[in-house]
Amino acid sequence: MTRSIEFFFDVGSPASYLAWTQRHTLGAPVTLRPMLLGGVFKATGNASPVSVPAKGRWMMADLQRWAARHGVPFRMNPHFPINTLTLMRGATAMQRQDEAVLDRYLSLVFPAMWAEPRNLGDAVVLAALLAEGGFNGEAFQAAVSDAEVKAALVATTEEAVARGVFGAPTFFVGDEMHFGQDRLDFVREAAARG
Amino acid sequence: MTRSIEFFFDVGSPASYLAWTQRHTLGAPVTLRPMLLGGVFKATGNASPVSVPAKGRWMMADLQRWAARHGVPFRMNPHFPINTLTLMRGATAMQRQDEAVLDRYLSLVFPAMWAEPRNLGDAVVLAALLAEGGFNGEAFQAAVSDAEVKAALVATTEEAVARGVFGAPTFFVGDEMHFGQDRLDFVREAAARG
Repeated sequence: MTRSIEFFFDVGSPASYLAWTQRHTLGAPVTLRPMLLGGVFKATGNASPVSVPAKGRWMMADLQRWAARHGVPFRMNPHFPINTLTLMRGATAMQRQDEAVLDRYLSLVFPAMWAEPRNLGDAVVLAALLAEGGFNGEAFQAAVSDAEVKAALVATTEEAVARGVFGAPTFFVGDEMHFGQDRLDFVREAAARG
Repeated sequence: MTRSIEFFFDVGSPASYLAWTQRHTLGAPVTLRPMLLGGVFKATGNASPVSVPAKGRWMMADLQRWAARHGVPFRMNPHFPINTLTLMRGATAMQRQDEAVLDRYLSLVFPAMWAEPRNLGDAVVLAALLAEGGFNGEAFQAAVSDAEVKAALVATTEEAVARGVFGAPTFFVGDEMHFGQDRLDFVREAAARG
């Protein structure tokens, strides 16, 4: 008897990407919870690790080591930090359509952001990527402009903050919260505890 | 053929304590490098994780989980953060006497700070602890007032910052830097790489 795992993430977070690549290794069902990391930072008084230059330099090397350990491609995006408001509204809209559509969207966006990498903060670059992935650009634009989609992303972000989230990725197993792609063992143990 | 490990720490850091409890599990000789974490924060623009309240709350639970995993006693010190200037000058002075004296000092101070825990920022409490541990209080006071000891702690702290340190604990294996008591596997791998 395992418990399911909630995975709060933002596609602009390289640690969220690394955690996402391991989503099928956690031994339990994973519920994707797209949130806006910028909103979390603003609400909690937190900031990106790269706001401390020495920490940012270490983090780049550390992420590369984790990617090697996981055996997944990773290249730091030279355009980081990228404003992910449109991308995360997109994730929210896809999930409202169907979990399978969100899965297809993230399988396109996460590697484009953290393996190729591309500047997905540029609308032209994003439009090209969506077209390559078989998404309808006009439908995407309509979806990310939808008031309900915008409100749903705000609501998830506010829920995350209310539950104690201050960064990404963050996992919940019931009320137990784990922060970071380097805490997957704790997440697995919590889920297995049932 | 293993390489030795430099361990930069401050006794006021709970993560430094947890890493210190694992110093004999790293499979390589460990060189103790006492530094002043407050000086590192000031020089790098970094701050304690607890300066973001939500992060501080998670960190307390996370440290407890790591202590359980390591099988070591841990209780968050209610007086945290404690000014460690005297304590770290003490560590510097002990090391200048003899590595074995530093080892005895840390085996007294670290558990008093993070397992009992006591308010070692209080001079009376510290004096009592040192007496219990068989240290001469007057000699300790003289040592921590010594200009060469003060300068040596400053020099180690400046060296740490110059090499990229932004927090504690930090490990070096040659030029390779690892931050955090949650990176001991990387430290072991780096040392074993020879």
